Amino acid sequence: MTNKRIAVLTSGGDAPGMNACIRAIVVASEGKGHSVIGFEHGYNGLLSADWRKLDSKKVHNIIQRGGTILRSARCKEFKEEASARLAAKHLDELAIDALLVIGGDGSFHGARHLANYWNGDVIGLPGTIDNDIYGTDATIGYYTAIETAMDSIDKVRDTADAFERIFLVEVMGRHAGFLGACAAIAGAANYVILPELFKDTQTTLDNIHQQLAIHRQRYGHESFIIVLTENLWPAGISDLATQLETLTGGEVRPVTLGHIQRGGSPVSQDRMLATLLGVHAVKCVEEDKSGIMVGVHNNEPVEIPLEQTWENKKALSSPLTHTMLTMLNERHHWGLG
Amino acid sequence: MTNKRIAVLTSGGDAPGMNACIRAIVVASEGKGHSVIGFEHGYNGLLSADWRKLDSKKVHNIIQRGGTILRSARCKEFKEEASARLAAKHLDELAIDALLVIGGDGSFHGARHLANYWNGDVIGLPGTIDNDIYGTDATIGYYTAIETAMDSIDKVRDTADAFERIFLVEVMGRHAGFLGACAAIAGAANYVILPELFKDTQTTLDNIHQQLAIHRQRYGHESFIIVLTENLWPAGISDLATQLETLTGGEVRPVTLGHIQRGGSPVSQDRMLATLLGVHAVKCVEEDKSGIMVGVHNNEPVEIPLEQTWENKKALSSPLTHTMLTMLNERHHWGLG
Amino acid sequence: MTNKRIAVLTSGGDAPGMNACIRAIVVASEGKGHSVIGFEHGYNGLLSADWRKLDSKKVHNIIQRGGTILRSARCKEFKEEASARLAAKHLDELAIDALLVIGGDGSFHGARHLANYWNGDVIGLPGTIDNDIYGTDATIGYYTAIETAMDSIDKVRDTADAFERIFLVEVMGRHAGFLGACAAIAGAANYVILPELFKDTQTTLDNIHQQLAIHRQRYGHESFIIVLTENLWPAGISDLATQLETLTGGEVRPVTLGHIQRGGSPVSQDRMLATLLGVHAVKCVEEDKSGIMVGVHNNEPVEIPLEQTWENKKALSSPLTHTMLTMLNERHHWGLG
Amino acid sequence: MTNKRIAVLTSGGDAPGMNACIRAIVVASEGKGHSVIGFEHGYNGLLSADWRKLDSKKVHNIIQRGGTILRSARCKEFKEEASARLAAKHLDELAIDALLVIGGDGSFHGARHLANYWNGDVIGLPGTIDNDIYGTDATIGYYTAIETAMDSIDKVRDTADAFERIFLVEVMGRHAGFLGACAAIAGAANYVILPELFKDTQTTLDNIHQQLAIHRQRYGHESFIIVLTENLWPAGISDLATQLETLTGGEVRPVTLGHIQRGGSPVSQDRMLATLLGVHAVKCVEEDKSGIMVGVHNNEPVEIPLEQTWENKKALSSPLTHTMLTMLNERHHWGLG
Repeated sequence: MTNKRIAVLTSGGDAPGMNACIRAIVVASEGKGHSVIGFEHGYNGLLSADWRKLDSKKVHNIIQRGGTILRSARCKEFKEEASARLAAKHLDELAIDALLVIGGDGSFHGARHLANYWNGDVIGLPGTIDNDIYGTDATIGYYTAIETAMDSIDKVRDTADAFERIFLVEVMGRHAGFLGACAAIAGAANYVILPELFKDTQTTLDNIHQQLAIHRQRYGHESFIIVLTENLWPAGISDLATQLETLTGGEVRPVTLGHIQRGGSPVSQDRMLATLLGVHAVKCVEEDKSGIMVGVHNNEPVEIPLEQTWENKKALSSPLTHTMLTMLNERHHWGLG
Repeated sequence: MTNKRIAVLTSGGDAPGMNACIRAIVVASEGKGHSVIGFEHGYNGLLSADWRKLDSKKVHNIIQRGGTILRSARCKEFKEEASARLAAKHLDELAIDALLVIGGDGSFHGARHLANYWNGDVIGLPGTIDNDIYGTDATIGYYTAIETAMDSIDKVRDTADAFERIFLVEVMGRHAGFLGACAAIAGAANYVILPELFKDTQTTLDNIHQQLAIHRQRYGHESFIIVLTENLWPAGISDLATQLETLTGGEVRPVTLGHIQRGGSPVSQDRMLATLLGVHAVKCVEEDKSGIMVGVHNNEPVEIPLEQTWENKKALSSPLTHTMLTMLNERHHWGLG
Repeated sequence: MTNKRIAVLTSGGDAPGMNACIRAIVVASEGKGHSVIGFEHGYNGLLSADWRKLDSKKVHNIIQRGGTILRSARCKEFKEEASARLAAKHLDELAIDALLVIGGDGSFHGARHLANYWNGDVIGLPGTIDNDIYGTDATIGYYTAIETAMDSIDKVRDTADAFERIFLVEVMGRHAGFLGACAAIAGAANYVILPELFKDTQTTLDNIHQQLAIHRQRYGHESFIIVLTENLWPAGISDLATQLETLTGGEVRPVTLGHIQRGGSPVSQDRMLATLLGVHAVKCVEEDKSGIMVGVHNNEPVEIPLEQTWENKKALSSPLTHTMLTMLNERHHWGLG
Repeated sequence: MTNKRIAVLTSGGDAPGMNACIRAIVVASEGKGHSVIGFEHGYNGLLSADWRKLDSKKVHNIIQRGGTILRSARCKEFKEEASARLAAKHLDELAIDALLVIGGDGSFHGARHLANYWNGDVIGLPGTIDNDIYGTDATIGYYTAIETAMDSIDKVRDTADAFERIFLVEVMGRHAGFLGACAAIAGAANYVILPELFKDTQTTLDNIHQQLAIHRQRYGHESFIIVLTENLWPAGISDLATQLETLTGGEVRPVTLGHIQRGGSPVSQDRMLATLLGVHAVKCVEEDKSGIMVGVHNNEPVEIPLEQTWENKKALSSPLTHTMLTMLNERHHWGLG
């Protein structure tokens, strides 16, 4: 086996565990005799040839840090052919054998685009808190975001119980309900509004009203917490709060978790996933694979063509949906028996 | 010394450490042979005679829990004379010697009002995350809220650094800057906007602009984080974000921490403060003191008349202000040399 | 479907998430019209008929609490026929249809034993931080213990780096390396000593010596952290520390994490696993299944006969082993190419 | 005011917040036009002239990191005159005006020793988790260690309650009870054994026995947690556990927290203290003060001669002692009425 020259970059929204993944790539590479460089600011660094050498010492003690030591950024001009050609030129000048891209689906589009103009191997690693990438059970950062959202719901419940109030908690997820579903189950929320289950606003309001009645009967006046995925309620969380105040006659407090969900020290599951994927990506480089994303399925590393990661839509797993409906939204709401 | 019958209630916004304080009152009382009951839902329980007996076993393993096991609530009608007379009647029927009220200044107004119509002893214990009560260096819940805000800023900085962005973080505080000042120092923010230092919006924008220029020169394009106290910026945090985007030409992301600041397991300093105050309040009951708040000053318990807690305005300590201006806002902005 | 009467108990070493599991069982049951009681102190409560009714209100706000509200205990006399017959009598007197036992393999032996003398359904749910139960990918409490061990290693690394020292960290696991392997990967340890990989003390010392040499070459004098599973090193962790001091000529500090690994608020993955298993166990009760453990495999709930949970030995997953050897112990040590 | 050239080093046991203090010194200095260098590995770096320039950018994003970016070490040879002269020579060659030493009393001895042979200013900043330095109410790292110990006790209590057991938790403190006292109060321990209150082993065993009897009467069979300062029980924590098992007839589990107490991200109080002291030390440099430690007393920065920091013994504050005895050890044990 020849020694490889590997480049890595992080792109798109940052996610906890990206550093753990960079570290795994570097340490695994070094153990096999490969060398690694990192491009700064996502694809921008590829265009400006802004890079630095990475070795074990440089990635020591970064596994626990949020964000990304390589920085991230959007890079709209990378869609153009000229950009991809320039990137290819830089990669060739540096004699790079493989480029590893840690990011979300936008980043993977960029990787696929580059592959049209460059002969080296291009491999994607899924890094986003939204877990909205087809072909992998989990994405780097997802587990930490669940934990942060859950911790916040735990805190809100302290106050909600003290005042016996209704709270609305908006979590991220872009257009997918993974984060909302898990935060709601782990946070013991009482209702969850997700893209995958959403019909229309009136049905949702009716269901909440009905669920609240059941809740009051079972729990008396304990708190009632609703988790909502961002970008879903047409007029926003404040409008939903107002509508629920009208509906229930009580106070409803909205909380938008926002950017704290993207940061923080990665939890163990994200560090392990990031390490597993980083190690596997290095193995793929050794085997000259290209145009793929490495992911995890049933606890095993898997490889799928980059195109499939965005051409298919990942569904909430059936056990997750079943658990959620049983514990939160009562299956009969949805005609599920 | 005769054994006392003590009642306790929590009122106003809940704060982490209220349970630790309830526990301290109960355990200290029991050790001295006093008995304790708790009224539910703040002053409402006093009006409806909704109470329960508290003993060591009932307060076991609550020290670490946020919220309040006695619940809290607002109670507007308590301002009326009839309410105070009804409460006094209930307290007399239960043969209560002293009522301990854990809460903020609204709760203390209620306590003082009651004292006009009841012969028992009335003692306040400061519980609010805002630390805006004169006569005590710290209030129960304040330390935990600082920690929560700081943790959130740490998380935001991960992303802010990854993208080299400006972030605005709005923290609670009602009309006081204690929480904002401490969160900003502990969170290594780059600028802080507090009621105590605020002149007007234009001066603030100018100062931020100037500070940002210094920052960029020193740090290059690292993140820039601004902490803002709630209820301060006239048109709200989104307006400030928009104005800063215009001013700087870059992206500015607003984050409102909201109700997560009121919850969570209390940090050690809040548990210790709550315990110190609870123990001292029981001592005050034994000494038949009334119409006072127990607080802490220079690490010693102190007692001050309830009226003073709202008649005086607590100022940011001078070392805190000095530290803040040196580290964040540069003293020359403020003509402080 | 007829309404069921379900009993639940927790047994053996406590694990974070047991309360989340109790809650899931109760909430899922109540939603379907079943009723639930809980026996106290594990099998002891079954023998002394010490039980209480559980409903939604009683399990509100326990999802985030470590330990178990039903208490746990060992119960040696439960192995006897008379005990099982007495338990069966009590269960019949209470007209219980199914007993759910949350615990480890000792608890499952008890459940299987009881099934010989009782006609009701007996179902096990795996709860132990050691993850040493065959038939399920994970056990309730395992994820939280990984997180606690990882957090501790993160803290140790701060000091280890400051002093450039060798640290030994002993984690739980009974006789299995799951916790040690995951804590070592997630904690970025530099070497791990696990039952599954252990040959003999001399080989281990030789390997560490060799690995330390590689480490020093790559990292200079950064810290070197070794994770060790309990009950493995014949003369204990202090002996290993002494031997390593002789071998390396430097200071070696041993740290035994101990019982903190059993406690704490469960992380999201444990709460979700506990909820998934609790919901599925209720479904199994409705289907009159018995003599099984409900577990999780490839993110789906599974059911396996209780006997198989102890008759088979669960192996470390191959991706986990591969990752561990690549990142920590260098595969060539073990002749793995 | 002339611009100063300031050097900083960290020495002795590392403590969370040392990095926050380094940062504060650098940022405050830079704002005033001073320059800063850092010596590596404590006094060793002073002897080997191992230093690096520090500026705002280099200390960005270190406030939240445990350990010390300047490393620490013991340096026995620094006691010799030749060492102090060599250090003075290196400082003069670098034209340093003031040396700031962050550490404990051993480090301050070194600083005082150096001052005999060097004309520059020498200033100490108290950094140790033990809080055993006279002249300051708190030391950098102390608050975080309390939090870590408290969190561990919270976790232990989960298991202790589940099994209704006696647990012994040994915390650090060297020969002082500050950490033990605070961890015990904040962790709701049931008994605490501290150097300041310790008479002899038999009295302690008798008192525990008596306290346990009271506890069982009040709480039934809930857990009983004893906090013990290290280096205090003559034959060690295991011996105490054994003696208590004999005394009580039940299981007693010992837990030694160990080095995790030295690490971790500093809590807000440590970051604020570190920042306050760092800012104040820079002010002292501007005023040409020397031979002093900067500390905090009653929330104000103070300066005291270095000799006094070790010549006097700091006592537990009276409110702390009162609270502790009231809540844990019952004042009558100690003849305190």
